[in-house]
Amino acid sequence: MHFKLEATDLQSSARAGTITTDHGVIETPIFMPVGTVGTVKGVHQRELKEDINPDVILGNTYHLYLRPQMPVLEKAGGLHKFMNWDRNILTDSGGYQVYSLSANRKIKEEGVKFKSHIDGSYHFFTPENVMEIQRTIGADIIMAFDECAPYPCDYNYAKRSMHMTHRWLDRCIKHLEKTPLKYDYGQTFFPIVQGSTYKDLRKQSAEYIASVGAEGNAIGGLSVGEPAEEMYEMTAIVTEILPKEKPRYLMGVGTPINILENIALGIDMFDCVMPTRNGRNGMLFTSEGIINIKNKKWEADLSVIDPMGITWVDTEYNKAYLRHLFTVNEMLGRQIATIHNLGFYLWLVREARKHILAGDFAQWKNSMVKKLDQRL
Amino acid sequence: MHFKLEATDLQSSARAGTITTDHGVIETPIFMPVGTVGTVKGVHQRELKEDINPDVILGNTYHLYLRPQMPVLEKAGGLHKFMNWDRNILTDSGGYQVYSLSANRKIKEEGVKFKSHIDGSYHFFTPENVMEIQRTIGADIIMAFDECAPYPCDYNYAKRSMHMTHRWLDRCIKHLEKTPLKYDYGQTFFPIVQGSTYKDLRKQSAEYIASVGAEGNAIGGLSVGEPAEEMYEMTAIVTEILPKEKPRYLMGVGTPINILENIALGIDMFDCVMPTRNGRNGMLFTSEGIINIKNKKWEADLSVIDPMGITWVDTEYNKAYLRHLFTVNEMLGRQIATIHNLGFYLWLVREARKHILAGDFAQWKNSMVKKLDQRL
Ligand SMILES: [Zn+2]
Ligand SMILES: [Zn+2]
Repeated sequence: MHFKLEATDLQSSARAGTITTDHGVIETPIFMPVGTVGTVKGVHQRELKEDINPDVILGNTYHLYLRPQMPVLEKAGGLHKFMNWDRNILTDSGGYQVYSLSANRKIKEEGVKFKSHIDGSYHFFTPENVMEIQRTIGADIIMAFDECAPYPCDYNYAKRSMHMTHRWLDRCIKHLEKTPLKYDYGQTFFPIVQGSTYKDLRKQSAEYIASVGAEGNAIGGLSVGEPAEEMYEMTAIVTEILPKEKPRYLMGVGTPINILENIALGIDMFDCVMPTRNGRNGMLFTSEGIINIKNKKWEADLSVIDPMGITWVDTEYNKAYLRHLFTVNEMLGRQIATIHNLGFYLWLVREARKHILAGDFAQWKNSMVKKLDQRL
Repeated sequence: MHFKLEATDLQSSARAGTITTDHGVIETPIFMPVGTVGTVKGVHQRELKEDINPDVILGNTYHLYLRPQMPVLEKAGGLHKFMNWDRNILTDSGGYQVYSLSANRKIKEEGVKFKSHIDGSYHFFTPENVMEIQRTIGADIIMAFDECAPYPCDYNYAKRSMHMTHRWLDRCIKHLEKTPLKYDYGQTFFPIVQGSTYKDLRKQSAEYIASVGAEGNAIGGLSVGEPAEEMYEMTAIVTEILPKEKPRYLMGVGTPINILENIALGIDMFDCVMPTRNGRNGMLFTSEGIINIKNKKWEADLSVIDPMGITWVDTEYNKAYLRHLFTVNEMLGRQIATIHNLGFYLWLVREARKHILAGDFAQWKNSMVKKLDQRL
């Protein structure tokens, strides 16, 4: 993997860059659509590529480990071939999913024992076997196995958890040092900064993570319920410390405004289920604000979904029709809203990149943030 | 509407023709994908047009009447504009749907009172108002309001019901004679032959229907549970009587084999939920037989879905991946299977047409019928 920093905004910490892997170039800032179990819900790979056009998508290790399971992915030669996606893939480490199981998992120094949400069977994730699972899935970027602390989290728990995440990181690195290439392309490892919402812990964790000298770095444990201001404060502390010449990935963030504010703080990579999940619930993000297409006000509104026309669905279908599809619970409604929202998220980060390169990012961001929160 | 009979098979009653309406040409034999409530479930209009490519689709009057309701469709200028489909649409009359409500409807000479399956509200369908509803929906081909008798049905009920359907037909025609064009294109009316599985009633009904001199004719009340042989027997009796120079539509049929056998008996038009509904349940129709993609045998089968490659999904995805999507209940699985099956049904009727035009339909049909029933 190679990262090239192309421009840094003068009035903020926003950056534009390119990440190059064996599966192609990722222009940053980037938003990565979430393809949990090998599919971005409701979107054909062809549409994803041609209409939404992200350079990279995300897969979830926990879900893929449970289904289709590793033997099938190994036989296929990895997730790229299994799902027929020849661009970049990043996998999370399962840490966040395992954390979400709350009552159904037990965290120890050795690793995490958890109960499958599907059949109740027991499984054990360790830093070492999670690296093996991610090697088999075959993502271009693989993530350290970490503990995502809950929010709110008392200081002592957050501190203990952070140090365990650091020790787990050492085990991940040690394991990867011993392993050859799994497939015929490289896989890059990103460690994860933790530390809950405590400034000193975030600082300490960022310093530790920076010290291991990985090719890229991530920030985890945010967007788990804390106020946006607290998230921004943590991001600012961490990006101050993480090396400038490496890409920075803020995991699981967020709303369009969250993304713009974090770009301004020096984040290069994002992922979030919001555009897809909220889309399936009838919420559309647009450059003028948010539409709840289920509202009765759209019942007879025959204007196109979004005159901006970022993706073809925006002008192909009208609002009354899309509302009707949601009213009758037709899957085409969820398909349309998903394509629209992902198209919008990718448009947003591409616009951010353009404005960083043009040197007017800060002004543009401030004007966008005012509009994005409106309810249409 | 204009129908041109282009060829008739010498060894069967199969025909190839073209129907021309203000929304374009329909090459027959044709299979019409079912778009119940203004959407062929899981398929974008763009994919329907470019990848599946039917000349005509079907809408359900009962469903569209309940949602989005007539004021919205009227404001849109009809269903074509509402859903953005500029090719042909045929609407059923709601007779079959109302019949399916069984306990929640009451049939009288004046019409049918029924209870909405959505909110329990009461509604009344008459031959006259169903013509008005279909005029507002704006389909190119609209159907007579009929009673679809259950199967099995005692002779006296079938006879009474048939005569009422004939009287309702007279009322439909009388009503339509008084009405001007609703939109800026023509709408063609098809009456429906009933008579359950009684030869004399089918003959009598076909004669009555033929006598009204409509531009096309339909056969209803079949594929409601009777053995295939009985269906073919009824079709044969009716096609013997219905005029050769008018298109013939067999409603709600059927399996690929049913379609080929009925084409051989002189049917030009078909519709059925089977390719879409069964597809959503993981059943794939192919030229070599039927695949249940949920079976464990496909778990690690990385071969393409269907090497014939009728639609792009067939070679874009592999069987193990499609099985995985069904296992994890992902909507993309239903989307893929639907496109595959509709592509196959349209391929089947196009091939039938080619072989009718080439003069070797009967032999081709017999060889296909042997393969279509196999379980892969
Ligand atoms: Zn530490
Ligand atoms: Zn009669």
